[in-house]
Amino acid sequence: MNERERIAMLARVLAAPAAGVLLGIGDDAAVLEPSGRLVWTIDEQVEHVHFRRELLGWHDVGWRATMAAASDVSAMGATPWCALCAMVVPDDVDDAALEAIATGQAAAGRELGAPVVGGNLSRGEALSLATTFLGRCSRAIGRAGAHAREGLWLAGPVGLAAAGLRALLQGLDDPRVALAVAAWRTPRAQVAAGGAMRMLATAAVDVSDGVAGDVGHLAEASGLQAVLDEAALCADPDLRAAAEALGVAAIDLVLHGGEDYAIVAASAAPLPGFRRIGELRDGAGVVVRSPAGERSVDPVGFDHFTSRSRRPGASGP
Amino acid sequence: MNERERIAMLARVLAAPAAGVLLGIGDDAAVLEPSGRLVWTIDEQVEHVHFRRELLGWHDVGWRATMAAASDVSAMGATPWCALCAMVVPDDVDDAALEAIATGQAAAGRELGAPVVGGNLSRGEALSLATTFLGRCSRAIGRAGAHAREGLWLAGPVGLAAAGLRALLQGLDDPRVALAVAAWRTPRAQVAAGGAMRMLATAAVDVSDGVAGDVGHLAEASGLQAVLDEAALCADPDLRAAAEALGVAAIDLVLHGGEDYAIVAASAAPLPGFRRIGELRDGAGVVVRSPAGERSVDPVGFDHFTSRSRRPGASGP
Repeated sequence: MNERERIAMLARVLAAPAAGVLLGIGDDAAVLEPSGRLVWTIDEQVEHVHFRRELLGWHDVGWRATMAAASDVSAMGATPWCALCAMVVPDDVDDAALEAIATGQAAAGRELGAPVVGGNLSRGEALSLATTFLGRCSRAIGRAGAHAREGLWLAGPVGLAAAGLRALLQGLDDPRVALAVAAWRTPRAQVAAGGAMRMLATAAVDVSDGVAGDVGHLAEASGLQAVLDEAALCADPDLRAAAEALGVAAIDLVLHGGEDYAIVAASAAPLPGFRRIGELRDGAGVVVRSPAGERSVDPVGFDHFTSRSRRPGASGP
Repeated sequence: MNERERIAMLARVLAAPAAGVLLGIGDDAAVLEPSGRLVWTIDEQVEHVHFRRELLGWHDVGWRATMAAASDVSAMGATPWCALCAMVVPDDVDDAALEAIATGQAAAGRELGAPVVGGNLSRGEALSLATTFLGRCSRAIGRAGAHAREGLWLAGPVGLAAAGLRALLQGLDDPRVALAVAAWRTPRAQVAAGGAMRMLATAAVDVSDGVAGDVGHLAEASGLQAVLDEAALCADPDLRAAAEALGVAAIDLVLHGGEDYAIVAASAAPLPGFRRIGELRDGAGVVVRSPAGERSVDPVGFDHFTSRSRRPGASGP
């Protein structure tokens, strides 16, 4: 297919109605009728950096790029509305592969209730998907604004995606990692939880670079210290089973893994769909509490420019 | 600098107030208070595909990526509001180069009155900038909607950027191409013209892949034939001088060049800031009229997946 035919195929696969979208794929820009306040984010998934095609199906490449971008919208307490995607496509991604990627984007859009309504297509050496999402809300919840003595609440799995990627990189064939592999391949943005926290949360953050780093961002922006309960962070039996199969500590996957697309929010009261993982207090940094006592953890998550070894990622463990 | 320091540097360089932007760089997403209708676009500039660093300064890499995205907003009759940019940065782009790119984005944002208010930073093999722009308008002007007998009107230079790129690729050192080189390196989105056409234009298109292809899109979407006057298309003395220096026909640069970021609009009445280049009539396709008569032109512009040789571009003439 030539570029025009590829765009027509993408328009056909991605076509979906969305309230307030007056004009979608096929013009210089999409046209939208907004209501309320907007949150707006962009995220990019680059082959060899964020994923390797041999570890993911093409469908999942589209799915996870869409979910990863939507996750930032949910973590602000907004409802995903619609997306654009700029794709760079190398010569060895053929028409069928491109259609499978778009099918994954469309499936994620249906799950989110927020379709891809436009984009851009370029040829290039490395496959990449830059997805920008708009979300709608009455009030956006940022990283700053939490108070001391508020609880820290988690929605979504943490550590599981990092376990899944490790298992794939090691070629580990063990039923205990099956859910972890699925968590890495097909993450789900926490749309319902993002909506549920809207009235009560004072601050929230998307957890995509490890709990230590992302909760550290929330604590720093709010001028507080985060105290996390190790037992609560590692309560997920699927995570514990996967960590056991891999021979690693579950808490390390939780704190320093990534690509969870979970939400941590601060709130004095319980949040529906969230579980308590700790609280905020005066001070700075991130502390983990276990029966052995408290210890500070390095709040740095994955760093694209220095700490490549920190994430058990596509660039190598 | 590590990722955090690079983001802090980008936030400092890009910082600029914009009405309706409640929260900018530094959280999971930007927060906006919209008014009126929105248009929304994404464009990506990839090194080795859209530019070569040795032909552009780093500042210009940021400038032209920002202007190219804003151009789609202007061509819909909307006023650029604010942007996000997802950047992929290879190891050989150092901190000073990254700061120069951001300085170029900030300068373009000031010229547009529309700053970059957030983004995403990844490491990767090829430098790329995916810029998404929001624009505000009371009424968006798409490609469809023109009527037979309406005039076709042009704002901005056409063919000049293609001449400039050709001159750079040939290493041509001739004062007759200086303005053409500047047109390629530092294009300007037609913001004032985009606003001026708002009340009168029935259809409009961004000219970035050659006049033949882009006017062809407008004609096809409107179900009409476009008739273009060769003399009007080549009236620009700077274009004629550059074409002469290059030994090529100005009309070929206009029809099949690219990266102009001009606007062609359809209107029964003159549009302020535009010049007439032809009209629409019943039929299909694109026709060029000269003293020798009328001839059909291939309406295909640059195609990322088949017609690489069509644009005298960074991938080779």
